[in-house]
Amino acid sequence: MYRTHTCGELRLSHVSQKVTLAGWVQRVRKLGGMTFIDLRDRYGITQLAVDEKNAEEVRAEVEKLGREFVVKVEGKVVERASKNAKIPTGEVEINIEKLTILNASDTPPFTIEDESDGGEELRAKYRYLDLRRNPVKNALMLRHRVAQETRRFLDAQDFLEIETPFLIKSTPEGARDFVVPSRVHHGEFYALPQSPQTFKQLLMVAGYDRYFQIVRCFRDEDLRADRQPEFTQIDCEMAFVERQDILDTFGGLMKHLFKNVLDVTFDNVPFMTYADAMRDYGCDKPDIRFGMKIKELNQLVQGKNFAVFDSAAYIGGICAEGCADYTRKQLDELTEWVKRPQIGAKGLVYIRLTAEGVKSSVDKFYTPEELQKIAAEFGAKQGDLILILAGAKKQTLNALCELRLEMGNRLGLRKRGEFAPLWVIDFPLLEWDDETQRFYAMHHPFTSPQPEDMAKFMSGTKEELEAVRANAYDFVMNGVELGGGSIRIFDAKIQQQMFKVLGFSAEDAESRFGFLTNAFKFGAPPHGGIAFGFDRLCAMFGGSDSIRDYIAFPKNNAGRDVMIDSPSQIDDTQLKELSIEIAKEK
Amino acid sequence: MYRTHTCGELRLSHVSQKVTLAGWVQRVRKLGGMTFIDLRDRYGITQLAVDEKNAEEVRAEVEKLGREFVVKVEGKVVERASKNAKIPTGEVEINIEKLTILNASDTPPFTIEDESDGGEELRAKYRYLDLRRNPVKNALMLRHRVAQETRRFLDAQDFLEIETPFLIKSTPEGARDFVVPSRVHHGEFYALPQSPQTFKQLLMVAGYDRYFQIVRCFRDEDLRADRQPEFTQIDCEMAFVERQDILDTFGGLMKHLFKNVLDVTFDNVPFMTYADAMRDYGCDKPDIRFGMKIKELNQLVQGKNFAVFDSAAYIGGICAEGCADYTRKQLDELTEWVKRPQIGAKGLVYIRLTAEGVKSSVDKFYTPEELQKIAAEFGAKQGDLILILAGAKKQTLNALCELRLEMGNRLGLRKRGEFAPLWVIDFPLLEWDDETQRFYAMHHPFTSPQPEDMAKFMSGTKEELEAVRANAYDFVMNGVELGGGSIRIFDAKIQQQMFKVLGFSAEDAESRFGFLTNAFKFGAPPHGGIAFGFDRLCAMFGGSDSIRDYIAFPKNNAGRDVMIDSPSQIDDTQLKELSIEIAKEK
Repeated sequence: MYRTHTCGELRLSHVSQKVTLAGWVQRVRKLGGMTFIDLRDRYGITQLAVDEKNAEEVRAEVEKLGREFVVKVEGKVVERASKNAKIPTGEVEINIEKLTILNASDTPPFTIEDESDGGEELRAKYRYLDLRRNPVKNALMLRHRVAQETRRFLDAQDFLEIETPFLIKSTPEGARDFVVPSRVHHGEFYALPQSPQTFKQLLMVAGYDRYFQIVRCFRDEDLRADRQPEFTQIDCEMAFVERQDILDTFGGLMKHLFKNVLDVTFDNVPFMTYADAMRDYGCDKPDIRFGMKIKELNQLVQGKNFAVFDSAAYIGGICAEGCADYTRKQLDELTEWVKRPQIGAKGLVYIRLTAEGVKSSVDKFYTPEELQKIAAEFGAKQGDLILILAGAKKQTLNALCELRLEMGNRLGLRKRGEFAPLWVIDFPLLEWDDETQRFYAMHHPFTSPQPEDMAKFMSGTKEELEAVRANAYDFVMNGVELGGGSIRIFDAKIQQQMFKVLGFSAEDAESRFGFLTNAFKFGAPPHGGIAFGFDRLCAMFGGSDSIRDYIAFPKNNAGRDVMIDSPSQIDDTQLKELSIEIAKEK
Repeated sequence: MYRTHTCGELRLSHVSQKVTLAGWVQRVRKLGGMTFIDLRDRYGITQLAVDEKNAEEVRAEVEKLGREFVVKVEGKVVERASKNAKIPTGEVEINIEKLTILNASDTPPFTIEDESDGGEELRAKYRYLDLRRNPVKNALMLRHRVAQETRRFLDAQDFLEIETPFLIKSTPEGARDFVVPSRVHHGEFYALPQSPQTFKQLLMVAGYDRYFQIVRCFRDEDLRADRQPEFTQIDCEMAFVERQDILDTFGGLMKHLFKNVLDVTFDNVPFMTYADAMRDYGCDKPDIRFGMKIKELNQLVQGKNFAVFDSAAYIGGICAEGCADYTRKQLDELTEWVKRPQIGAKGLVYIRLTAEGVKSSVDKFYTPEELQKIAAEFGAKQGDLILILAGAKKQTLNALCELRLEMGNRLGLRKRGEFAPLWVIDFPLLEWDDETQRFYAMHHPFTSPQPEDMAKFMSGTKEELEAVRANAYDFVMNGVELGGGSIRIFDAKIQQQMFKVLGFSAEDAESRFGFLTNAFKFGAPPHGGIAFGFDRLCAMFGGSDSIRDYIAFPKNNAGRDVMIDSPSQIDDTQLKELSIEIAKEK
């Protein structure tokens, strides 16, 4: 037997028991004639002790130990002379009677500590060592807990976890598919699913009215920071439901998870329309932990001979409470911040409400009364700072959204441990693309229009189509979109209209989605669903912005697993069997 | 709201309540002035009733209904005049007050009944309709239950479910990999995992001492009946364990599943060595629900001038109790059965122990006393039938194994609902292949030799190596291998010896498995694991021999999904982006 207890288990109540532990040598310390060893496993750390009274064989083995050696140790639990209150096992230690080195270790390339000295790349290459560090271990344990609680909740609600295939069919629309050449069927390919979307809809047609799956999905995108070519989602679908049923059920799931994983409770999740979110927060995933809403100022500021504002399609601002004492230097720095390419504003106008009166960077265009009127629009009071951006509407709103979040950060309004969930609803259904001169589905081609907008959708002009709202919803937490979904089209005629609006020919639609539209001919029920980004959800639970630590073996920004060195070349015989050849490099 | 209750929910206690149901029209029957509709959903069937007293709009809508129409119905629960004891809702029906057709249905291509009139191919093409049938639905609900119970048990035992990557590296050894061309890295490929084997071992190196995952795996094999290119396994690994720890833990898992899913209890799982299994049952996965053990007869039957036996390397037989009255015709038919290519025997010798004495097909070579001696070897008694095969040892044992199972079937000894679990242990570590003149790992290259055979393994001759036993084990139930695993090599020197024995060059081993052997340099703990075939396990729970009904969207024997028509051709632009070309057809 390798152990009777784990390294996180022993307490004062175990004193004088004979135990066997196994684990890794975290640290060896010598203090006079004493040697102390911190023995580590997944469950904790236990101190081992040896002094001159211990047997010579034991002392000889201890001499050989280095960091990360794997040992098995037998001995008696004794009360420590100097206790360590920081760890649960800190009141006891093991007096070693026998020590067996199970495996030696080379010196690890970085320290296995909460704060490692290893760079990101080095830690990625030795991911199996990085995984030994507490922060990563805790992230994966949290992920396990979130997965189990998700299943517990949905199982209790009569959801069935049904596995859908990974080797499916390529239906390019939106992101690129990863494909898998078939050896048996010459020149043909499987595709890896970007999501089980069509399969879960088929399951609704098949009568499985509550489906879920925690499932890997694949997207061959040009990678951005914090995007992974393979990612996991909690994928769900329900039949015989309207939007409210879905929001109730999955608002309930989120409440269950926050309660059971973090012991955080919140009331029912509030709603906000897409239009309101864009108007008040400049984006469709507002962080509502704090106010600082955006106000449009066109009416108030145009026509006063300030060319920048007069020529702008949109002028808007926010009010940063208590920031009137920002120095010139701080305001300059903020101006530089909004002018960065990621934010893209042309400049920043400010109004400071000081004890000495209203001061602004546009004093020569506006009277104090006019500036007071602007301040009144924000409900601003003495001590506040108003920040104004102007330009094209979409870009300016986006910049204001970022500026608001930045000011929220600076003012400490985005508090860790505070959670503000939100349903954003009534998204536009379609998005016109000028370049390709066609509509794209904002969500995906199976999303239903809002019932009230159905007539417009079935026979509207281009302008009317642009105004059609989708019966779609996003779950947003603290400014992060954690999930999204929609009520689906379940009427073959409406689906055909959608394909027409998206510019698919009948043949095209048939070859891509025929198996779904054909299925709809045999009694499709009303249905809808949602998918949560599981990696992102776990990162949110862990209080991290980065998903990578919540994935056991992530890929880097180039889609490469540097630990196993993949992707890599394959044998010529493999290529031949698959009937494929590598094209010359472009 | 689409429904207040499901179609499986209403009882006498609901009588006179107003309810709303939604579902599919299973059947419409007219009886005089009455029309009865069976409304079906996932939960059951509820009868709807309409007669001349119902409103005309309702009767008009009912007239339009056809099989598999989707409807929403409002009405009052009433007690039925003629009750149906066969279904839980059989005491009540709904008097329809309002009926809304949510979706019409074309006539389905086959009947949605427990016994459908649709052939296998047709049902595969319309899998979403086949999935509506009770047997398939029950199979998927059972699968869900087995998955949830597996997680519940392992979670309670401190196992962590950790997701491993799907886009990994091709390491051809054994079965073929499916590969995925990388668009970003020219000429390079990911591979889909045949199992998470190396990743779970890395997790052990990383200190996650109890890992599991219910995970999809991929194998590009030439398909046999009941093999799927993608399949699911319960994949597990533990550190700081010996074989007995693994067997206790996963014997416990199986006990938990059988108890909680089927309410079947069994005692601790017995053991059998591979050598004993081969000797007594002719195969490494014996069905021990019945005896009928194989006996070797070489000593007893050779040297009596019967050339067939004298020239055979192995002669063995079984005793079929109570079959002495088999007719000549039956024995001829059995002889033809063993001569089929799948069994491959040259002929069949029988000895009948009748009331008139011992009668056999080899009377002219053996005296009655000699035949009695053979009978005694089996402990046969009057009324029994001894069946004997001869030939090369391996093939003859295999044929005897099949013959034994066949006789078990004919005698009703392989009872449904009876479960006989078994651990088979002490498999050979290596298998010599004459064609390639090298050893192959019987399990995989990370399987540890038995501790007692380690010296032989490290420096043995070819003959000694062949005799080395692996520290491996299979979980067998009723003659079906449900899972298997091994204690792994965790010492870099032993692993190098394994690669050497398998004929890998140092470079080869490094490029294929370097990330694992390098990891072992940093303190690998002793570890081992097991994987259960989840599709097969679910089929066993469901009492079926075929895994296909336990997979929501299976592929056919050619690896094709005929519903979505995959694999299929992809766009030229996709090929170009991936820098691959299709080779000419061979």
